[in-house]
Amino acid sequence: MSLPEMMAASVLSAPRTIELKQVPVPQPGPGQVLVRVTAVGVCGSDTHFYETGHVGDIVVQGPLLLGHETAGVIAAVGDGVPSERIGTRVAVEPQTPCRSCEFCKSGRYHLCRKIRFYGAWPVDGSFAEYALVDDDFAYAIPDSMSDEAAALVEPVSVAVHAARRAGVTAGAKVLITGAGPIGILNLEVARAFGATEVVISDPIPHRREFALAHGATVALDPAASDLSAYDEHFDIYIDASAHAGAIGSAFPAIKRGGIAVLVGMGGDELTIPIAMIQHREITLTGTFRYVNTWPTAIDLISTGRIDVSDIVTGRYGLEDVEGALMKAQTDPLAIKTMIVPALTPTSSAG
Amino acid sequence: MSLPEMMAASVLSAPRTIELKQVPVPQPGPGQVLVRVTAVGVCGSDTHFYETGHVGDIVVQGPLLLGHETAGVIAAVGDGVPSERIGTRVAVEPQTPCRSCEFCKSGRYHLCRKIRFYGAWPVDGSFAEYALVDDDFAYAIPDSMSDEAAALVEPVSVAVHAARRAGVTAGAKVLITGAGPIGILNLEVARAFGATEVVISDPIPHRREFALAHGATVALDPAASDLSAYDEHFDIYIDASAHAGAIGSAFPAIKRGGIAVLVGMGGDELTIPIAMIQHREITLTGTFRYVNTWPTAIDLISTGRIDVSDIVTGRYGLEDVEGALMKAQTDPLAIKTMIVPALTPTSSAG
Amino acid sequence: MSLPEMMAASVLSAPRTIELKQVPVPQPGPGQVLVRVTAVGVCGSDTHFYETGHVGDIVVQGPLLLGHETAGVIAAVGDGVPSERIGTRVAVEPQTPCRSCEFCKSGRYHLCRKIRFYGAWPVDGSFAEYALVDDDFAYAIPDSMSDEAAALVEPVSVAVHAARRAGVTAGAKVLITGAGPIGILNLEVARAFGATEVVISDPIPHRREFALAHGATVALDPAASDLSAYDEHFDIYIDASAHAGAIGSAFPAIKRGGIAVLVGMGGDELTIPIAMIQHREITLTGTFRYVNTWPTAIDLISTGRIDVSDIVTGRYGLEDVEGALMKAQTDPLAIKTMIVPALTPTSSAG
Amino acid sequence: MSLPEMMAASVLSAPRTIELKQVPVPQPGPGQVLVRVTAVGVCGSDTHFYETGHVGDIVVQGPLLLGHETAGVIAAVGDGVPSERIGTRVAVEPQTPCRSCEFCKSGRYHLCRKIRFYGAWPVDGSFAEYALVDDDFAYAIPDSMSDEAAALVEPVSVAVHAARRAGVTAGAKVLITGAGPIGILNLEVARAFGATEVVISDPIPHRREFALAHGATVALDPAASDLSAYDEHFDIYIDASAHAGAIGSAFPAIKRGGIAVLVGMGGDELTIPIAMIQHREITLTGTFRYVNTWPTAIDLISTGRIDVSDIVTGRYGLEDVEGALMKAQTDPLAIKTMIVPALTPTSSAG
Repeated sequence: MSLPEMMAASVLSAPRTIELKQVPVPQPGPGQVLVRVTAVGVCGSDTHFYETGHVGDIVVQGPLLLGHETAGVIAAVGDGVPSERIGTRVAVEPQTPCRSCEFCKSGRYHLCRKIRFYGAWPVDGSFAEYALVDDDFAYAIPDSMSDEAAALVEPVSVAVHAARRAGVTAGAKVLITGAGPIGILNLEVARAFGATEVVISDPIPHRREFALAHGATVALDPAASDLSAYDEHFDIYIDASAHAGAIGSAFPAIKRGGIAVLVGMGGDELTIPIAMIQHREITLTGTFRYVNTWPTAIDLISTGRIDVSDIVTGRYGLEDVEGALMKAQTDPLAIKTMIVPALTPTSSAG
Repeated sequence: MSLPEMMAASVLSAPRTIELKQVPVPQPGPGQVLVRVTAVGVCGSDTHFYETGHVGDIVVQGPLLLGHETAGVIAAVGDGVPSERIGTRVAVEPQTPCRSCEFCKSGRYHLCRKIRFYGAWPVDGSFAEYALVDDDFAYAIPDSMSDEAAALVEPVSVAVHAARRAGVTAGAKVLITGAGPIGILNLEVARAFGATEVVISDPIPHRREFALAHGATVALDPAASDLSAYDEHFDIYIDASAHAGAIGSAFPAIKRGGIAVLVGMGGDELTIPIAMIQHREITLTGTFRYVNTWPTAIDLISTGRIDVSDIVTGRYGLEDVEGALMKAQTDPLAIKTMIVPALTPTSSAG
Repeated sequence: MSLPEMMAASVLSAPRTIELKQVPVPQPGPGQVLVRVTAVGVCGSDTHFYETGHVGDIVVQGPLLLGHETAGVIAAVGDGVPSERIGTRVAVEPQTPCRSCEFCKSGRYHLCRKIRFYGAWPVDGSFAEYALVDDDFAYAIPDSMSDEAAALVEPVSVAVHAARRAGVTAGAKVLITGAGPIGILNLEVARAFGATEVVISDPIPHRREFALAHGATVALDPAASDLSAYDEHFDIYIDASAHAGAIGSAFPAIKRGGIAVLVGMGGDELTIPIAMIQHREITLTGTFRYVNTWPTAIDLISTGRIDVSDIVTGRYGLEDVEGALMKAQTDPLAIKTMIVPALTPTSSAG
Repeated sequence: MSLPEMMAASVLSAPRTIELKQVPVPQPGPGQVLVRVTAVGVCGSDTHFYETGHVGDIVVQGPLLLGHETAGVIAAVGDGVPSERIGTRVAVEPQTPCRSCEFCKSGRYHLCRKIRFYGAWPVDGSFAEYALVDDDFAYAIPDSMSDEAAALVEPVSVAVHAARRAGVTAGAKVLITGAGPIGILNLEVARAFGATEVVISDPIPHRREFALAHGATVALDPAASDLSAYDEHFDIYIDASAHAGAIGSAFPAIKRGGIAVLVGMGGDELTIPIAMIQHREITLTGTFRYVNTWPTAIDLISTGRIDVSDIVTGRYGLEDVEGALMKAQTDPLAIKTMIVPALTPTSSAG
C-alpha cells in the first residue's frame, strides 16, 4: 500500500480554534512507526488545552495536534523496525522516554525528566489521519478487540497504574470518590485486581447508576450521606474527583495502614488531616500517567475482565473535533467521546 | 440452649481404624469457643493419617479426631469471649499459634514453632458434633454462605496463600500443574487475583474438563503435549501435583524474573535446573498452609468471585468417616468429600 | 532473692505534681514479668503529660506512673514464664497488643485498636523501682550493653521504624529536618541502614554540630540557607521537627518517586504541595511508634553500628523526676535525660 | 587531545592464545563514548574463556578482547553525547540492553534477551588501551576514587545485586559460603546494607583470615565444623562457592521465611531439600549479573562504607594478560588481579 503525501489533521492554532487542514504525512524515523489512526479518545486535558492554551506549566506555543488516546494500524515503519509490523492493529502508549536516565533504567520511565508526551506541546498528537509513535510503544491488540476499545486502553491504563500504586489485591475494600470516566474505570479495574467491595461516591445521580451497573457495591450521594458508616473501613482510597471536600471526607474512612491514591489533578495545595494520617499510618500518594500498563490493560479488556462496552457515548469525525471537545465538557451524560477519522467526510482513509 | 454432655465423635484409634463413639463435649477455655460442627471437608492428609498413622514427622500416638476443614455455629464461649458470639455461623482456621514469638508478631504466625494444628496429633480435629477453637480463628460468615462453602474456606485458603506468595496480580499469566482440588482452587483463586491466562496440566481427562469449566485458558494433557509452545511464557508457576516430572518440565516455561511456588508436598528432595534458575533469576519457594487468609477467602466465595458450587462431590455422616476417607482416595471423579454430622443417624444435632 | 513488698515510685497525681511515694510492688500475672528498673529515658510526651495532664486524646484521670523507655532486670515471673528468665537484663518494649485482631495477626500490632501503652493513662509506666511488662516484650540484651543503652532502645526503635517505612537502603540519599534526639537517632539509624548521604537541618547551632559528629554529610541552618541546591535530590525525607515550615520547604528537594515520612507529631492539619506530590509520585506517610523493632535496635546498638554513647546528657533519681522532665524542656544542650532508680537516696534497690 | 589511530590490544585468537597487537582505535557511534582504559579487573569468566574458548553456551568464534571490569577516562564522544563528557573519569557497566523490551522498560534490563555483554563473544571487552561503551553506562566517579577502585565497581555490583535480591537490611543475620573475591565483597556489601551478623565459611585458612579482617562475625572451616550450631538461624544465605555440598549444608541453617541466593555459577542441576524449603517457606533464587547497581556501588566505595583497599593483589600490563589470567587461577593468595594498560612497556598511553 502506498501512503498518501498529505493527510487531514485537526490543528489547534490558537485557544478555541481548531481547523481541519491538509498537512504532510509525517515520516517514521529510526525505531518509529507511522500509525493510521482508527479512533482517538477525547480527554479532559485536550479540552483544557483547547480552551486555555495550556495545561499546568505546559503552554502551547504554535500549531499543535491534540489527542493521545490512540488506536490504529501500522502503515509504515522506520529504520530498524521489521516490515512485518505493517498492518498490525495497535493501541498506542503516547509517550517517549529518554531510555537512558535513572528513571528509565529502573522501570519508572514515566518519571523521566526528558519524556515527550503526545498531544502536548511540542509533540503532536493523533487528531489526524496518521500519527508517529515509537515502535515499542505501539502494542499489538487481538483481532477481537475493537478500535474504540483499543483507544480506551489509555484511560484504562490510568486506572491500572492507580490500582498498582494502591496495591489493590484480592479481597480489598476500596473507596472511590468521583464516578466520571476515570472513576468508573478505576472501579472496573479495582474489581479486576480482585477488590470484593468498591464503594463509590458522586453527586450526579446518573453517574451513580452507571457505577452500580459497573459493579459498585454501593454508590453514595455525598450530599445525602456521609462516610461515617465506614469509619476506618477501607484498605484503599482512590480519588478521581480532584475535589478537596471529597478527599477530606474520605480520610476517616481509611483503615489503619491503608493508602490514599489521588488520581484526579486539582489545585496546587491540599490541606490534609496529618495527625490522623500519622496515628493510623496511612500512606498518601498520587499518580502521574502510567508506566508499563499497556499489556495489562489490553489483557484485561480483551479477556473481558473489565467491561468498557458502554464507555463510549459519542463519535465525531476530524472536522468536528471542537464539537467533541465541548461535548465532553457540557453533556452530563457523556462519558467518553471518540474522534474517528474514518467518519470524516473527506477523509482519504474513508 | 443447653449443651449436651456427650457427643458423637469419629475416633481414630489405630491406623485404618475409626470408630463412632460417644465422648464428652469439650469445654471452652479462656478465649475459646465451642463450635457445633455443620460440615467438615476431607483432606488428603486425613486419609494419609488414617492409612499410615502419620504425616511426615507427625505420628499419631493415641486416640485422635481428624478433620480440619470446619464449618459450624458457635454454641458456647469461654472466658473473655462475648456471649453475643453464640449463634454465629463460622468458618474455622484450624490452627493456634503461640502469639508471642517473632513469627507471630511479624504476621507469619503459620511459621510459629509452637503452633498447634487441629486434626493432627496431639490436637483433636472436627470429625465430631462439636469442636473447640480459638475465638479469633472462628470467622463469621455471611448468611448467604452455605455450611459446605464455609468448610471449603480452608482449601481455598491454601490457594489464596499460594497466590499471595506467587504475587498473582491483574494480567498475570499462570501455569498450574495438577488439576485436583488444590489445582482447581488455585485456578479459581488465580483468576480472582486478576490472572488473565491460566494454563493447567493434568493427565486425567475429566480433571482437565473440570478445569476448563472453571475458567482455565487451556488444559493440557502432559502425555500428549509438552510445554515447549510456552517457552519463557508464564509469570507464575504453581505446582499442585507434587510430581517431580511435572515440576521439572515446567521450569523452561517460566519467564525471566518469574516465580515457581510448590504447593504440593512430595518427596524430601528435588533436583532443579539451577543454572536456568540463576540465568533467568527465577524464584522458587513453597507454601506451608496459610496465614491471614480466612477473611479474603470468605470474601472471594461469598461475593461469587470464585465458584465452589460444584467442588463438593460426596457427603457422609460421622458413622461413615472411613468410607469418606477412602472415597477421596479411590474415586477419580471425587473432588471434595464432606463429613456432615447432621447426616449421622443417631446424631443429637440432627 | 525475695522481693520487697513496697517500692519507691514517682507518682503523677495532678498536672505539674509528681511525688515520690511508697507503693506496693505489682505482681506479675500470666505471661508477665516484673522488671527491676535500672534506667528509664525521659520522653517529650512524659513532659507533656506532666505539664498538661494529657497527650492528644489521652487524658490522665488518676494517679499514674510515667516513663516508657525502660531498661531493667527480670526480678519475678508470672504463670507460664520460665523461671530461668529471672536475672535476665532486658530492654522493654512498652506496649501490649490484643494479639487477636487483624492488625496483631498481620504483623502490625502497633496499629491494634486495643493496644495498651505503658506510661500513658491508664497503664503505669516505669518511673519506679519495678515495672510489670509482658514477657515477650522484655528483650534480653547482651552483657556488653549498658543499662542506659538498653533504655535508648526505645527512641532508637522510633528511628528504626521510620527507616523501614521510608525504605532506607544502601546508597540512599536522606534529608532529615530537626536535629533533636529523634532527628539524631534517625540520622544514625539511616546510616546503619546504608544511607550514604544524610543532610540534616536545624536552626540550633550546637544541634548541627552534634549532627555532624554523628555522621551527617551536611548540617544546614534553615535560616541561612534553603534547600534549593538539593532540587529533586533526596530519595527519602524524614521529618523530626514537626515544624510545618520545615516540612513545606523539604518537598521540592525530594526526588521523583521518593518518600516523605513524618515522625514528628505536630498539628492536626498540614497543607501540602499536592500537585508536586502527584506529578513526582512522591509518597507521604507518618509513623506511629514502632513494631518489631527491638531485636534490630538492640543489634544495631550492641554491634556498634550506631553510636549512642553521647546521647544521655543527664541522670536523675526517682526523687527528682520533675527536675528531669523540665531539664529536657528547658536546657538546649540536653539531648536525653535518664531516670536511674539506683540514684534515688532512699532506694531499696540501691 | 587528538586520539591515536592505532592502539595496543590483547587479542584472544584461540584457546590459550592471547597476543598483544596493534589494532585500530574504535570510533564511538551515536550515544557511545570511547574510554581510555586505566584499569581492568580479571574475572574468573575471563580465565574460563581463555582456557576453553567458551563460557556456558557462549562460544568464541573469532578474535575477541576479554575484560569487563573497566575503569577509564572518556576520550571521545559519539553523536548526541555532550563534549563536556570528555575527560570524565568513569566506571563502566559492561552491558548494553535493547532498551525497548518488557524487561528493559520494567527496570530489569539485565534480563533483556538482546543484551550485549562486553568481553563475551561477539562484543569486545577492555583488555586494550581504549574501549567503546554506551554513554549512560559510563558512570562518573569522584576524584577521590582510584582507578582500581573504579574497576572494582563491577564485582562490587555483583554483590550489591545479590544483597538487593536477598533483601539484606539492618539487623540481618547472613550466612555466606565461599570467601573468594565474590564472597568477600558480598560480606562487605551485606554489612553496608546493615547486616549485623555475617558468618562465612571457606576451607582455605587465609581466606577465612581475610574474611575476618573484612568484618565477618565468624569464619568457619567447613571441614572442621558444620553449621548445626546455627539451626534455623540466618535470615539470608548467599552462596559464593558454587559448591553443591556447601549449598546443601546451608539449608538447615536458614530461618523460616528466609531466603537463599545463589550467586556462584556451578552445574546445570542441583538437588535441594524441597520438603524443608516448603515447610519453612524458604525462598531460593539466583542472580544474573546486576541491574542499576553502579551508582550504589560507587557510593558505597567512595564513602568508605565498604573497604576494597586490599582486594587488588596483582597488577599486569597488556603484554602479560595471559600471566594475569593464570595468576588468578593458580595463586591461592590472589584475590583480584588488575590489567593496567599504562604498565605496558610500549603503551602509547604511557
